[in-house]
This record gives sequence, C-alpha cells and structure tokens, in this order.
Amino acid sequence: MLEVLREHRAFGGVQAFYRHDSEKIGLPMQFSVFHPPGEKSQMVPVLFYLAGLTCNEETFMIKAGAQRLATQYGIMLVAPDTSPRNTGVAGADGDWQLGHGAGFYLDATEPPWSAHFKMESYVAIELRDLILREFNADEQKVGIFGHSMGGHGALLLALRHPDRFRSVSAFAPISSPMRCPWGHKAFSNYLGDRMQAWQEHDASELMKKRNTPFPEGILIDQGLGDEFLKDQLLPLAFEQACLQANQPLTLRLHEGYDHSYYFIASFIEDHLAFHRKILGG
Amino acid sequence: MLEVLREHRAFGGVQAFYRHDSEKIGLPMQFSVFHPPGEKSQMVPVLFYLAGLTCNEETFMIKAGAQRLATQYGIMLVAPDTSPRNTGVAGADGDWQLGHGAGFYLDATEPPWSAHFKMESYVAIELRDLILREFNADEQKVGIFGHSMGGHGALLLALRHPDRFRSVSAFAPISSPMRCPWGHKAFSNYLGDRMQAWQEHDASELMKKRNTPFPEGILIDQGLGDEFLKDQLLPLAFEQACLQANQPLTLRLHEGYDHSYYFIASFIEDHLAFHRKILGG
Repeated sequence: MLEVLREHRAFGGVQAFYRHDSEKIGLPMQFSVFHPPGEKSQMVPVLFYLAGLTCNEETFMIKAGAQRLATQYGIMLVAPDTSPRNTGVAGADGDWQLGHGAGFYLDATEPPWSAHFKMESYVAIELRDLILREFNADEQKVGIFGHSMGGHGALLLALRHPDRFRSVSAFAPISSPMRCPWGHKAFSNYLGDRMQAWQEHDASELMKKRNTPFPEGILIDQGLGDEFLKDQLLPLAFEQACLQANQPLTLRLHEGYDHSYYFIASFIEDHLAFHRKILGG
Repeated sequence: MLEVLREHRAFGGVQAFYRHDSEKIGLPMQFSVFHPPGEKSQMVPVLFYLAGLTCNEETFMIKAGAQRLATQYGIMLVAPDTSPRNTGVAGADGDWQLGHGAGFYLDATEPPWSAHFKMESYVAIELRDLILREFNADEQKVGIFGHSMGGHGALLLALRHPDRFRSVSAFAPISSPMRCPWGHKAFSNYLGDRMQAWQEHDASELMKKRNTPFPEGILIDQGLGDEFLKDQLLPLAFEQACLQANQPLTLRLHEGYDHSYYFIASFIEDHLAFHRKILGG
C-alpha cells in the first residue's frame, strides 16, 4: 500500500511524497518522486538520488533544482530517506553521524542496528522494485547518484548491484569510508570489526576488484572549498581504485565550491545530462 | 558595518548572507545576496525578492532555483528577511500571520509595532541604498518581485516608490489586503483603524489612483490549485484596478499549481526574463 502524502504541480509534472510499510526495514518509510510530464504517455528513465548525513527524502527535491531538467529530459527522480526513522534503537538519535539520518546505504549486521537499518536491501531492491511496479519507469534505464554519504551510497549500490543500476555519478562522495572518521564510526557500529565486511562496503575497495564495471564512465564533482574534503571525502582514493580497475572516470575539482546544496545545484545539470546520455531518452 | 555571515560559491558567483545594524528598524537585520560572476567587472542590474509569511532571507535562495538564471543574465539578487526579529513585542511570536515573519513591507504606525516594524522604509530606502553603495549594482536598473505577502510587498513598494523600482512582478500576491483576513489582521494591528491608511497600503487601491505607472507591464503568476486563492489572494481585485489605471498586466492562471516554492521554481525563469527585458543587461 502506497500512501500519497502530498502532491505539488511542478515544471509541468508532479512532485509527490509517499509513505509505505517497508518489508526490508520493518517500519514505515517515506520517499519522494518527481514525475515528469512525459511519464503519462510513455516509459521513462528513472534516476535515484541518495542524500547525505542529516538529510531526508525532501532535501534534494527542495534544494537541488533538478526538476526543470527532469522535465526537459523526461526523467523520473526518486529520493529515499537516509535511514529508517523512529527505530527505538538506543543511540540512534543523539549523533548526526550515526543512526537516524545516517544509514550509509548498507545492511547492518550488528545488533541493535541490524533490526531495522537495512538501507542497501531497501533502496537497491525493495524501493527500486516498487518504483518499477507502481510507476511508468523503464527497468532498462535506471541510474543512481548522490551526495556525500549518499554519493558513496550511489557508488556502493551500483558496484554491488551492477544489474540494477546502469549509470552512476556523485557529488562530493565519501570515497572510502574505511579510511575516514565518519566511515569508521558507521562501519564499526553497523558491521562490527570484521575487515572483510568493511571492504565489501567500501566503494574504493570494491572498485579495485572489478574490471571496467561502468564502461560508459563515472562522473564525480568535488568542491575544493569543501570543509570535509581532506578528512572525510578523499576522492583520490576512489580515483586510484578506478585506475587499477581500468574504470573511466571524470573527477572534476571545482575552485571555491563547498559541501552545500549551492554546490550541487550549480552542477546538477551536468549530472542529469550524463545519466541521460547513458540511459537514453 | 556589514557583517558577512556566510559565503557559498554557486553558479560561478557567490551566494552570500549578511547582517547589519538597521537604522530604520533599530535592530540587527539579515539579508542575502546572490552576486553573479559579471559583477566583478561591471555594474549589474539588481532584483529584490520579498518572501511571504513565515519565510526569512534564506528561503528564496534555497528553494527558487533563481541563481542559474541570475548568472546567465548577470543580475544580482537580494532577499531581505520578512520582518524585524527579536523585537520583544508582546504577541510578535505566537501568530504566524502577525509580527515576526509577517512584517507586510509597511511602516507600522501603531504601538507596540511602530517601535521596530518599519519594513517599507527598511527595504525601499535603507537596504536599497546599502546595496547600491556596497556592491556593483546599477541604480538605474533596480527591479522588485515577491511571493504572497511579499508579492503584495513588491507591488506596494513599486507603486509607492516608482522612482526606486523600475520593474515589478509577483507570484501569487495578496492582491488587496483590505479585502482579506490576513490583510485585515495585519492592517488593524500595524496601521490602526483609519481607512485612509489602509487604502494607502493596499496595492489595488493605490493602482486605481495611478495612470499607467509601469508602461512596460506587470507580470503576475497564480496557481489555480492554490489553497489561499479564493479567501486571501484575490488576483482579480488587482486586475480590475489595472483596468481602471490603464496599466498593462499579464496575469497567468496555471492549472493545478499550489502556493509552494515548487510553483515559484516552475516559473522563476519567466520572471527573471521579464525583469531583464525591462532593466536591460
């Protein structure tokens, strides 16, 4: 049962917010969809956007300015929340880097997180299938992108589910969670201390073991004025992995831009054009 | 003294937030400016945006998606807050239709509001002069627009200060505050019960007494799915006044669109193009 929370007319299409009972998460989840006008008459490509720490399913739709281009290109946009909510897990609310708003797009294996924090299964399987079932989205034309924690999420889910996501890009992604404080905190809580589990959820480590998984390339934009660049994001770790994997990559470093949605909005057009080129119209 | 609160690189320009001690208001005020890249090398047109009830100086810059076009056209954008803040006035905080966040862009004459609620003098004189003095903005190319309470504010200030604003447009403006509940509450508190004062602060009443004040036209967009259309906004009152004043007006009624920033973002491009055509590059 898909509950419509709100619908706003926007750019000739509809900006909608939904709630449903998630089987994988075991709790209600909310997500947003921008339905482009073209969806009425034909199957359209669909692009999943994964947001960063502290964000929710509204953030991207309010701040990124993507709907104009989604209408122009005829692409559906989908943004899930960044974690389960109201889980009752002790410690899930007090720290913006962990728990609610910080699901890291992985399936936690460690209690108490493992009860509900199943964001990989939720996004890559349950929500993707729901979108393809409920709306006029083309199963052959599914892309994914995101920002910061969600930029890593996009790279991670694309690498772990290459049959489910054909195109991938990121804004200022956490490039190797194993190598940064945010990632250490998340992985040690959600995955425990097994190094193998960490490697299996680190996009740079996964990339090293692949061979050109995305032959049409990956696009990453990064601001040089980003306050998290040197301690948390480490884009060169992912670039190095792409070199090893023979993976085409466009990594653009932009003078002065920070970690905010003003940065994302400034380059959103290039990302939609990138996915459209790969997915087709 | 202009204090820089934050600066974000955006669309090749700079999204800045400032604070200063306002002489007219008698308290610190915050406002935002989008500086387009062209401002570095030449004088640019400047467009003031007045937001609606409950909003502040950030709302427009986050939600409207205007910076892309401001860069393309080389226009500076300025958004003041919607009222003084922390005034200590009893009743200024409890009601979203009155007091903080609801200044209505007029100079209150009634105590206790008259101590600080001087938004007309603040925006039309003090802030406008400050912008022209501090930044590379062209005094001959100043426009104004806004949404809801701020849509009325734009019409009001343009009509009361025609030498200070050359172009004016609005999204879903309160068209005649004298004729709606929001306006009744604001006017009776801020202006008392003198009918003449009400008429002098009602854009439709003012328009009736003019003769083609804006020969290059006025643009108003209104959603037909707007929940406030029939009780509060009354666009036909302003249209009727334009007929009497021989004032060219484009009033566009859009099927399905509501009162949100999804509506504003959908048509922001037309408003920037409208002002640019009148103000020049």
